[in-house]
Amino acid sequence: MSSAPGGVGELVVDLNSDLGEGFGRWTLGDDDAMLELVTSANVACGFHAGDPSILRRVCAQAAERGVAIGAQVGYRDLAGFGRRHIDVDPAELVDEVIYQIGALDGIARVEGSRVTYVKPHGALYNDAASNPATADAVAEAIALYDRTLPLVGLAGSELVAAATRSGLTPVAEAFADRAYTPEGLLVSRRLEGAVLHDPETIAARCVRLATSGTVEAITGSTISVAAQSICVHGDTPGAVAIAEAVRVALVGAGVTIAPFATPTAA
Amino acid sequence: MSSAPGGVGELVVDLNSDLGEGFGRWTLGDDDAMLELVTSANVACGFHAGDPSILRRVCAQAAERGVAIGAQVGYRDLAGFGRRHIDVDPAELVDEVIYQIGALDGIARVEGSRVTYVKPHGALYNDAASNPATADAVAEAIALYDRTLPLVGLAGSELVAAATRSGLTPVAEAFADRAYTPEGLLVSRRLEGAVLHDPETIAARCVRLATSGTVEAITGSTISVAAQSICVHGDTPGAVAIAEAVRVALVGAGVTIAPFATPTAA
Amino acid sequence: MSSAPGGVGELVVDLNSDLGEGFGRWTLGDDDAMLELVTSANVACGFHAGDPSILRRVCAQAAERGVAIGAQVGYRDLAGFGRRHIDVDPAELVDEVIYQIGALDGIARVEGSRVTYVKPHGALYNDAASNPATADAVAEAIALYDRTLPLVGLAGSELVAAATRSGLTPVAEAFADRAYTPEGLLVSRRLEGAVLHDPETIAARCVRLATSGTVEAITGSTISVAAQSICVHGDTPGAVAIAEAVRVALVGAGVTIAPFATPTAA
Amino acid sequence: MSSAPGGVGELVVDLNSDLGEGFGRWTLGDDDAMLELVTSANVACGFHAGDPSILRRVCAQAAERGVAIGAQVGYRDLAGFGRRHIDVDPAELVDEVIYQIGALDGIARVEGSRVTYVKPHGALYNDAASNPATADAVAEAIALYDRTLPLVGLAGSELVAAATRSGLTPVAEAFADRAYTPEGLLVSRRLEGAVLHDPETIAARCVRLATSGTVEAITGSTISVAAQSICVHGDTPGAVAIAEAVRVALVGAGVTIAPFATPTAA
Repeated sequence: MSSAPGGVGELVVDLNSDLGEGFGRWTLGDDDAMLELVTSANVACGFHAGDPSILRRVCAQAAERGVAIGAQVGYRDLAGFGRRHIDVDPAELVDEVIYQIGALDGIARVEGSRVTYVKPHGALYNDAASNPATADAVAEAIALYDRTLPLVGLAGSELVAAATRSGLTPVAEAFADRAYTPEGLLVSRRLEGAVLHDPETIAARCVRLATSGTVEAITGSTISVAAQSICVHGDTPGAVAIAEAVRVALVGAGVTIAPFATPTAA
Repeated sequence: MSSAPGGVGELVVDLNSDLGEGFGRWTLGDDDAMLELVTSANVACGFHAGDPSILRRVCAQAAERGVAIGAQVGYRDLAGFGRRHIDVDPAELVDEVIYQIGALDGIARVEGSRVTYVKPHGALYNDAASNPATADAVAEAIALYDRTLPLVGLAGSELVAAATRSGLTPVAEAFADRAYTPEGLLVSRRLEGAVLHDPETIAARCVRLATSGTVEAITGSTISVAAQSICVHGDTPGAVAIAEAVRVALVGAGVTIAPFATPTAA
Repeated sequence: MSSAPGGVGELVVDLNSDLGEGFGRWTLGDDDAMLELVTSANVACGFHAGDPSILRRVCAQAAERGVAIGAQVGYRDLAGFGRRHIDVDPAELVDEVIYQIGALDGIARVEGSRVTYVKPHGALYNDAASNPATADAVAEAIALYDRTLPLVGLAGSELVAAATRSGLTPVAEAFADRAYTPEGLLVSRRLEGAVLHDPETIAARCVRLATSGTVEAITGSTISVAAQSICVHGDTPGAVAIAEAVRVALVGAGVTIAPFATPTAA
Repeated sequence: MSSAPGGVGELVVDLNSDLGEGFGRWTLGDDDAMLELVTSANVACGFHAGDPSILRRVCAQAAERGVAIGAQVGYRDLAGFGRRHIDVDPAELVDEVIYQIGALDGIARVEGSRVTYVKPHGALYNDAASNPATADAVAEAIALYDRTLPLVGLAGSELVAAATRSGLTPVAEAFADRAYTPEGLLVSRRLEGAVLHDPETIAARCVRLATSGTVEAITGSTISVAAQSICVHGDTPGAVAIAEAVRVALVGAGVTIAPFATPTAA
């Protein structure tokens, strides 16, 4: 852990990544490598991915490295990897989110750590970004479980608004490898240029984000994106190289990389 | 709740039952009626039965009534209702049990209560009764999660031995509606006479169990069964009537019915 | 089987019901009783409900009674009983429908019968009724598997239109216990009066449907509903009594009750 | 396809491999590369791995290449990849196997092919190799579905015996990369030397198997292994290279590589 992140004039940003997303015989991404690079681990909770043994292994390694553990809650959809909208009743969604947080928290405690924040996954993330009822269900679950847990969502989204409404601490995040519209939204993955692939370009954008709070939109204009955390992906080819480039560039620019939540390591 | 169970000369026994064993559209048993009769609720944790909304509903009602909540952990087998032996690697079983306890505990906390004990379900219960490796895996999971949680198992079984080995508090239980061998084991369900159906007979056996610590074996001989809790089933026709008869008979015999674990009600 | 349904001037209607909707330890409805009353069995295929042993039992009994077997295909969602919209990619949906038809057809063949039609379940039924892309995916799957299989859908819906587009035989159905809007659509279950409960009222509506092709809308006006099959539910309290009343009334009115598809019984 | 495999004096062997074993977002092995090398594809059926879209893709490519499609039936256990013994009731196992064959056959038909044989997977394969009741359940399912489908099992195992008992055609297979005991059984994976890794060594063993029907046991002695098919794995690092070396060596030795079952390609 950085000893004093957030001192006067200090630039601080968190790097988060989705981890623990294998299931049984199937693996996804290189969790070990990513845990050396990020400060917050969004650990799958078993509904869209992740079995108890994978969760425990990731929690153990996160705890060892002082990486904060977050509950990456999702729709119950292994076949769709939580990426498909499911029309879940909001009241049931509240219960499903509590269940997932509790399950991961139990495992994190066993490894001497704790769940220290919550970030929805995939379709639940997207639904909660635009649909207030979904966002409120996620926020209500967290408020019921432990209202000190921050809720990570897309900067400017309904999820961040719901966190505020529920008395939770919202944490706005930006995406390292995604193009932005002039309005500050993510360009749809279905459009060309939506996902960036060049490590140096991505790293430079992250430095700009962390130092000036701005990013160049896909149209070329400059927009403000106030993000406390930057999401780097771990499940695509070249993911580790990109995350490494981002980290190196941020450190080189004098930015302190530190978790927004205090990891409760062993 | 009984204000001072366990006073000098007082006869005390706990009544436990498996609850929350529906799933989505499917229901099983009459949870509401059983919660009026038992003092400990073994709540399914989602692996063999139970979805988050069912779990929350049972936890809320248990908390309201001062019924202790236990984690009824099982094999991951919705299709088999956890009743089929699965050759799970013991290390993975440890993680699966932690996950289940954590998930239910999260929901119980939201309802102002806590998981206050653990009881394995179905094939896991039977495997752990006879197989030390399975029993040790269950006990290890509990010891890692919270070593103050008692572990409920068949009186005289490997599960009770494993609890003791792991420094946990074992709670021995007897079955209200099952016939016993002269050795104090349960008569296999495949044999005739293994399951008793008459409420009065069952109630009388429970009174004898609670007051003298003995039961009549299927052969007619008298055997000792030291049990702190009696399991009454809730998922068969007539289950509620049997549980009611047991409760009435115990109270009539001067036995105090109280949970072995202190429920943490709201 | 009626020896010559559909003769000159003869009034014929099919009665269909959703069956085989238990799973493992959980049961739903009284399949045996319903199989004595209906002429077409919409058998669950394992995605929203139904395990292989339940499917086989229902197929065996349907074959024995000359009841036609239809594949009741649904979303992969045991937890939601297929009643929640899932944003499945249409190309994947095609494959999932083929898989389900094939699985049930395999079991039906073993019992000397065949899948002789397809009817989507729950949210898939509703989505396909209003969304052409979903309807086309279902129709494409059937056309690929066996284009002689009729597709059952709500009279006047997109599903019926998609069947026609794909060269399939559409079979329009009406619901015995549901109120209709003046436009011939079902009144949403969320509105009062949407579901009828009185067996005599329901039976009288069915007679009118079968003999005059009309029904009284919730507003009191008379509307045309051209349906070759009437769906009677089997999973609610009183379901069997309602189905019985419908059957008795239809027979009493001189209507022949016969399947639209020829059952391939042993 | 070889135009006349099995002519006088011609040496013929089949190469089979487990394919289609991904699930949703998760992939396993390189199906495309393996389909260029093998003559029989054991396609997962959705119980231990494989979703409908993966199955269809593999079936389409197998049909295009004239590779025979076999149903790789397994226990219902995605979390354990079908590698854990589950104490399934034999009568239910029969139904589960029928369901899986039917589902895959439906998809294969859509791609202009058919399921032309059955091979159990993982723990079901091992259980059926040693347990007559399990072997009989698998054989009964095939006999009920289509008794012309051959059943692939370990040479000398109970599965081969059950096939014969049920009037099915047994196909004995050997494993390219596994060590054998002097008794002709596979050396347990838990023992050192159980799995071979060197492509040249493995290829040479396969040539010897196909040309002389013998293999060198782990003790150095020569044993007879009468196998019509050789299983090459596709899910380990270097799997494709091994399969390629086996194929090249067999062809170089004048062995014709051809499926034992006639693929029904488009």
